[in-house]
Amino acid sequence: MGKVKVGVAGYGVIGQRLADGVALQQDMELVGIADVAVTLPIRALREKGMPYKLFSAVPEKSNDLKNAGVPISGMFEDLLKEVDVMLDSTPAGIGVKNKELYKKYGVKGIFQGGEKNEVADVFFHGYANYEKGLGKEFLKLTSCNTTGLIRAVDCLDRTVGIEKVAITIIRRIADPGDIHRGAVDLLLMEPIPNHQAVDLMSIMPHVNATGLLVHTPVTHGHIITIVATPKKTIAKERILDEFNRHPRIRVVKIKEGFNSNTAMFNYARFLGNPRGDMYEIAVFEEAVGFSGDDIMFAINIPQESVTIPETIDGIRACMEMQRDRLEAVGQTNKYLGLK
Amino acid sequence: MGKVKVGVAGYGVIGQRLADGVALQQDMELVGIADVAVTLPIRALREKGMPYKLFSAVPEKSNDLKNAGVPISGMFEDLLKEVDVMLDSTPAGIGVKNKELYKKYGVKGIFQGGEKNEVADVFFHGYANYEKGLGKEFLKLTSCNTTGLIRAVDCLDRTVGIEKVAITIIRRIADPGDIHRGAVDLLLMEPIPNHQAVDLMSIMPHVNATGLLVHTPVTHGHIITIVATPKKTIAKERILDEFNRHPRIRVVKIKEGFNSNTAMFNYARFLGNPRGDMYEIAVFEEAVGFSGDDIMFAINIPQESVTIPETIDGIRACMEMQRDRLEAVGQTNKYLGLK
Amino acid sequence: MGKVKVGVAGYGVIGQRLADGVALQQDMELVGIADVAVTLPIRALREKGMPYKLFSAVPEKSNDLKNAGVPISGMFEDLLKEVDVMLDSTPAGIGVKNKELYKKYGVKGIFQGGEKNEVADVFFHGYANYEKGLGKEFLKLTSCNTTGLIRAVDCLDRTVGIEKVAITIIRRIADPGDIHRGAVDLLLMEPIPNHQAVDLMSIMPHVNATGLLVHTPVTHGHIITIVATPKKTIAKERILDEFNRHPRIRVVKIKEGFNSNTAMFNYARFLGNPRGDMYEIAVFEEAVGFSGDDIMFAINIPQESVTIPETIDGIRACMEMQRDRLEAVGQTNKYLGLK
Amino acid sequence: MGKVKVGVAGYGVIGQRLADGVALQQDMELVGIADVAVTLPIRALREKGMPYKLFSAVPEKSNDLKNAGVPISGMFEDLLKEVDVMLDSTPAGIGVKNKELYKKYGVKGIFQGGEKNEVADVFFHGYANYEKGLGKEFLKLTSCNTTGLIRAVDCLDRTVGIEKVAITIIRRIADPGDIHRGAVDLLLMEPIPNHQAVDLMSIMPHVNATGLLVHTPVTHGHIITIVATPKKTIAKERILDEFNRHPRIRVVKIKEGFNSNTAMFNYARFLGNPRGDMYEIAVFEEAVGFSGDDIMFAINIPQESVTIPETIDGIRACMEMQRDRLEAVGQTNKYLGLK
Repeated sequence: MGKVKVGVAGYGVIGQRLADGVALQQDMELVGIADVAVTLPIRALREKGMPYKLFSAVPEKSNDLKNAGVPISGMFEDLLKEVDVMLDSTPAGIGVKNKELYKKYGVKGIFQGGEKNEVADVFFHGYANYEKGLGKEFLKLTSCNTTGLIRAVDCLDRTVGIEKVAITIIRRIADPGDIHRGAVDLLLMEPIPNHQAVDLMSIMPHVNATGLLVHTPVTHGHIITIVATPKKTIAKERILDEFNRHPRIRVVKIKEGFNSNTAMFNYARFLGNPRGDMYEIAVFEEAVGFSGDDIMFAINIPQESVTIPETIDGIRACMEMQRDRLEAVGQTNKYLGLK
Repeated sequence: MGKVKVGVAGYGVIGQRLADGVALQQDMELVGIADVAVTLPIRALREKGMPYKLFSAVPEKSNDLKNAGVPISGMFEDLLKEVDVMLDSTPAGIGVKNKELYKKYGVKGIFQGGEKNEVADVFFHGYANYEKGLGKEFLKLTSCNTTGLIRAVDCLDRTVGIEKVAITIIRRIADPGDIHRGAVDLLLMEPIPNHQAVDLMSIMPHVNATGLLVHTPVTHGHIITIVATPKKTIAKERILDEFNRHPRIRVVKIKEGFNSNTAMFNYARFLGNPRGDMYEIAVFEEAVGFSGDDIMFAINIPQESVTIPETIDGIRACMEMQRDRLEAVGQTNKYLGLK
Repeated sequence: MGKVKVGVAGYGVIGQRLADGVALQQDMELVGIADVAVTLPIRALREKGMPYKLFSAVPEKSNDLKNAGVPISGMFEDLLKEVDVMLDSTPAGIGVKNKELYKKYGVKGIFQGGEKNEVADVFFHGYANYEKGLGKEFLKLTSCNTTGLIRAVDCLDRTVGIEKVAITIIRRIADPGDIHRGAVDLLLMEPIPNHQAVDLMSIMPHVNATGLLVHTPVTHGHIITIVATPKKTIAKERILDEFNRHPRIRVVKIKEGFNSNTAMFNYARFLGNPRGDMYEIAVFEEAVGFSGDDIMFAINIPQESVTIPETIDGIRACMEMQRDRLEAVGQTNKYLGLK
Repeated sequence: MGKVKVGVAGYGVIGQRLADGVALQQDMELVGIADVAVTLPIRALREKGMPYKLFSAVPEKSNDLKNAGVPISGMFEDLLKEVDVMLDSTPAGIGVKNKELYKKYGVKGIFQGGEKNEVADVFFHGYANYEKGLGKEFLKLTSCNTTGLIRAVDCLDRTVGIEKVAITIIRRIADPGDIHRGAVDLLLMEPIPNHQAVDLMSIMPHVNATGLLVHTPVTHGHIITIVATPKKTIAKERILDEFNRHPRIRVVKIKEGFNSNTAMFNYARFLGNPRGDMYEIAVFEEAVGFSGDDIMFAINIPQESVTIPETIDGIRACMEMQRDRLEAVGQTNKYLGLK
């Protein structure tokens, strides 16, 4: 089997990272990316000398790109003719329109969390339900919070069995660079249950889940606290062991300075990771404890990059590159440098 | 029995509100307040024409006050000669020194949450353990979060019995006007359990409690989410009924605009309450739900003013103004306008 | 001449404060306010027992108010029948529609800064061009920054003559309670010149003005720095004297704790002012200096309440209650407690 | 002449970037870095496999490093034996102590802006006073704001002559990851003049300078507005031309999305620059204008990395690697990729 050919639609917060992630997979080829406007990421791509080929997503807007001196390698449909699968990280509502083009060209599609579930054949998470994605035409990934949350809950569930979870999501309200007049000095409530709890039950139907969500004026990640009821008692050491062995989870210590979402972002910057990206969620070791027999713990979600590994798992599933779950995620992890 | 004579030491965030709260109690007399420096609250007191008498807390610094044109009515010990009980809202560490003076003058003392528990004979909450404070010399109040949290948990506990709670505190990291270089764009973790859970167990020893705390860059209140395990099942309507009947709890609707800590602060401003104070915690109606049989809900803590009612309850307890819990809190509520 | 009868359209951030300000004027009568939806300010009005009469601004939405238990005293046109002048603080774009109704009922109108200049006969500032508003049908007030800025520049201009000003506006990006996803951790640039400089030249055509504006993630006021070129040299003491004598300017000292926009907000809260309102701009004494002969200084703009006095001046002008500028602003100041 | 051997003391915000910057200079050799504690940057260095040699800055704390599994290549004095010049980016107050060791080992020293001016023989800026640093033992660099500010003012001064400047610095109050309770929702004033204006006059004594500084709750850069009085009139196009030709200044357009300090940070992230670093200040094209004949404009200061080029210029000066100013800065620029 030759390399699977992949394109990325939308070169924004997620798309930039998808492109980099695919480019690292030695059994995949990044054919190119598609976007429409001369955004800052596109300007940066030009300044870097176009390491990725750019296709014009909307032909009638191609001149905007040309006028800004951005070389283009063709139109959107030219890209579709060359790829096996498209990763669609366009704004919500665009993906469902692109889907018609994907069908026309016989290209598979993987949509990000912003699109409605109905866009896809299966709502997908690499670790929790890889098998459901095998050979499917269209997948939809879980959102950033749900992806990270399921990683942790699935890890515990496969260890000890989880009956139910009650989660509190403390969410960033904006991304770095958002400019609109908005929330500055407040904590904004959402009704119970949050969509992440509902989505978790969709992926893991044997777990009861509910939760609250509070928006907070920060930009560099989310914190989620989780109260999980296990099917049998489990010691703290065992919990930490299992999290430690998970390639997409970092167990960190508050006392060592890993004490906030921004500390995790900074650490990724210090590592020299492009854009300060981190694929792993973090579990704060000193924040793992018990409420009776229930497990209480907290995780950090790096919202910009956390979904990249599971999206690449999705390519493996829909293209049937690997049929075994652990073999598939293992390949993704290896190429992303997740040990 | 004549009016109980009360003084307030420390005219800062809490002290200003204690003075106002006591001044409203028709069975108490606010003799005066004591402070040391020409702070903004003291300057405002002067601009308002000194509605409260000011005593100089540190004689050798009296000239600072005089030089700023602030009239003083005597020294700290002059105040102690005239009062039955002192409400001590001085910075942490000062209260324990003041206690020696209170003993010397045979004055009772009620300390705020910042002081160590050992300073007092009993760790006190008006609704949860009023009886323990009866006739005591020295009380210590629970902190702002613990005070509000216990209100809600005690309310449920007296209704249905509560076995355990797992709480997530989403805390303001600063007060309005704090100027130091500090947390701007981050969510700061604390280890499990937070002190509020430990304090709750101290006041309500029959309840198991744990919890996590995350500092957030906001100034106008805290949000706490609570997962409470009841001794028997209870319907959502009943929960809301009980909260609604509690004079120090407001049940509010997110959809009506009560959607954040700052919305609650704004509403208090719109009511014309001095400084935007609100004595009540809020329960967000649409945030009440269930995780299995466990109750999950969220409350808002107006950190600047939430402890005022329970502190006044403390005067009633230590002075034995009322021996019955509900009679005592009822008097406090009546004079504060809490129906 | 009997009391001038005044109504307020829009009971939001500005409208609440206009109503209170008018209610304090002993030569005016606040007939009532008009609004359309059950906002938090309207809910607070109901909880306070309707100190002001409410008229339904949009008849077909009256039921929303009634269903929420808010008593209404009539429809918008009922209010117009009873008043001499309407203060219009509705959202941008509504005022221009209301103007047709004002004409129909022969009612004068004063619009806030959000409306386009064309809505009015004159662009008005109580201190700088009072005479232009005399007897006019429709006035438009300067916006919050421009109002405060002109107070300070007009004060210097009447003292020493000002040739030109270069201003830097450091602006709040949101109001307390704003909930949208928006700017959290950034400083947002606007092109030169900002509209405040242009507006200043419209009110004070003999002064050359330009400036930059930077949005910042705060909610409790703006800071403006000003480089003003005087027609002759002036000493710092003289500048401070003139500012000190202006009833709508407070000269404050950084070293006394008046060190930020939020310190000014807090001080207004400590004074017991409703909502923490302050009518005065502040000049920071230690921030007054010179660049060559140019004067450099900084002012604080309390954006929620700063325009109230000049708006009331507008009533005096259009109704010709006083023909003399200083007599008019003096009456406004007296009733607002500005010495 | 062989490569100049350089060490870096303090591997924090600035030290990490100095090490990377020196490592890029083909006529210099980075011998190693020195630090004392197991900070996040040191942990990241370990995780990256120790691309730089680490020396233990405080021998008695070496075990902390060893216990954390961080390999060390020797003690601080071992490093001093091998280098020609040390870049000292230790916390304020440490550098002056280190200076004694530098003298003992005959090593030159370049201190960052936090240290007092007296620590050095000359207060240095690569573009503005390179010649003063030639052959000196000890240099002190200007701080981040002053460095960027002087770049722009020196550029104009060499073009048209500048008589005086009045600046407004809108400063970040914290760095990403700062955790202390501090300023959240306020604009904090400093007295006039700010130290940056005073420092500018120290480096450029022929220019009169003053200014105000306002701290704002952001972390990703500063904005400075400048009113500069030129010796003769100059057109906007000429100003933009000169800025455009400066290798350490980027002229950017607000309308293209370069509209904030954080947009500049994001763009550096998008470029793949380690940690989102950017050496250049930005001039916002649409923010360049005139107040009479005075030039008004605004610049962005990337506080974490802006001083790196001028610090490397300092090595060239004190080691007399180049005697000509433009030749020296040209070499630095070439190796840093600044065209």
